[in-house]
Order: sequence, then structure tokens, then C-alpha cells
Amino acid sequence: MQQRLSLVTLGVADIERSRRFYEALGWVGESPDGEVWFFQCGGMVVALWSRELLAADSGIHDSGIHDSGVNDSGVDDSGGWGGVTLAHNVTSPAEVDAILAEAGAAGATIARSGAPTEWGGYSGVFVDPDGHPWEVAHNPYWRIAADGSISLH
Amino acid sequence: MQQRLSLVTLGVADIERSRRFYEALGWVGESPDGEVWFFQCGGMVVALWSRELLAADSGIHDSGIHDSGVNDSGVDDSGGWGGVTLAHNVTSPAEVDAILAEAGAAGATIARSGAPTEWGGYSGVFVDPDGHPWEVAHNPYWRIAADGSISLH
Repeated sequence: MQQRLSLVTLGVADIERSRRFYEALGWVGESPDGEVWFFQCGGMVVALWSRELLAADSGIHDSGIHDSGVNDSGVDDSGGWGGVTLAHNVTSPAEVDAILAEAGAAGATIARSGAPTEWGGYSGVFVDPDGHPWEVAHNPYWRIAADGSISLH
Repeated sequence: MQQRLSLVTLGVADIERSRRFYEALGWVGESPDGEVWFFQCGGMVVALWSRELLAADSGIHDSGIHDSGVNDSGVDDSGGWGGVTLAHNVTSPAEVDAILAEAGAAGATIARSGAPTEWGGYSGVFVDPDGHPWEVAHNPYWRIAADGSISLH
């Protein structure tokens, strides 16, 4: 499997609420059907879709429904965070703070205010309306190209 | 906030087990400390880190520990899937099947076998050792460039 991530889909409770949240951050998306929203993010896509439909599509067990057979990941949706955190890297600590402020104004919970990190950067965390956390970070060790793409070296 | 996703960190129970899984798929990563593993994926990075440490870093409540104060997302880690599904797009149905077979051989659960989708593509889903689902998809409506980057148009 090539070393690529093409798409990240965030399951949401209210597609309109989520779309408006990301649009309030300045994002512009598109939808083929009003149910799934796609945001082109450089060479990949961030999508918003009903968490329930995403769960079924991914073979996740609903907390009250046990599928046996065809679609079965062996994993449940217990409703909270599931071990995935997103990150958005920027070119300065000031930009971290500005984006956290923007996210807060859009309705995000600020889980961690902007501050120096023990690893030598500066970051904070906001959480979107569906509990998906985004770390906003200045990482001086990684390169950010003019188009925003990130390189480890 | 620019329309970019820089990094996705997958919280894992056993960093060595996870690293070996992705390496078995052909991925090559690097680690500054043996605890976090970074995989350059085009213009962004996929990282593997202790789920417990990632939770704390993201302001997530441990199921048994309630942090009040500084780091608080208002969200719990209930241990299962948390509404995020990853996807890897390829250029043909045959490639979908090949990658699902590769993932299965590496120890993934196949949540959904490769098959035509109702939206006009062909896809299946494998789940990594920590319950993180990857849809492997052929989407004829999106463009895949030579470098693997994805465009909605």
C-alpha cells in the first residue's frame, strides 16, 4: 500500500452544524448530495458525513445494534473520542494563537491553550462540534512549503 | 485557518505492534524517540503514538480519570471507534483487492470486502490493530495524480 492518506472522514451528528463550523474557519467545501461535504486540503480531502452512516460504512457496531456477518470491524462506536487527533501546522506561535481564537469564536472548545511544548514547539488544541480534536502547532523542526505541505526533512 | 490537514495521529496500544503493521504494508517511518512514529504521506504526515499519551495531549478524559482545568476537551476516550475513518484511494478495483489482501495478511480485520459501492466506485475496509478503519477505494470521479495526490476535480 503506497504511503498515502487520501481522505479523512469525520463522523458528525449534524452535517449543517459541522459544515458551518469549518466554513467559519474559512474553509470552502462542496457536496454532491447535501449529506457528505468534501474539503480539498492540498493533495487530500477532509470529509464530513453522518457519524451513523460512516459507522455503518466502516463496519462499526452501533452501541445498540450488533451486525454479524458482512460488515464487521469488530469495533464499537462508544460515542466519544476514538484515538485520532488531527493537526494543522503553521509557521509561528502567533499564528497558532490566532487560529485558536478563530476556532473558539466559531464555537470550538479550546482543550489546550497555545503554549510552548516540551518537544520544542508551540501548540494548542481546539475540539470541533463533534469532539474531533485539532492540534494547531508551530513545529520548527518540520518544513512547511509555500503550498502548506509538510515535510519531516 | 488554511484548508490544510498537516498530520493525523493514530493512538495505539502497542507502538511496536502498530509500527510493524504499517511496515508490513510497505510503509517506512521514522522516530525521534522510539515512542512516536512518523510516516511521510505526500504533503502530510501520519503518526503513531501511545493512545494514552495522545489522549492526555489532546485534552481527552481517560475513562477513569477526570481532569478538570487546563487540558479539557470535554470529550472522553471510551475505547472504541470515535467517528473517524481514513481512506486510501487507488486507481483500480484490482488494486483495492490487492491492498485488502495485503492488509489482511499483515493482521488487519477486513471489515468490508472489496465490492462495487452504491456511489459508483469500488471499495472495501480494513481495520488496523487498534481499530482504526481504512477504506481502500477506487473512486472514478476523483483524480489521482502521478504522485498519488487526490483532487476532487
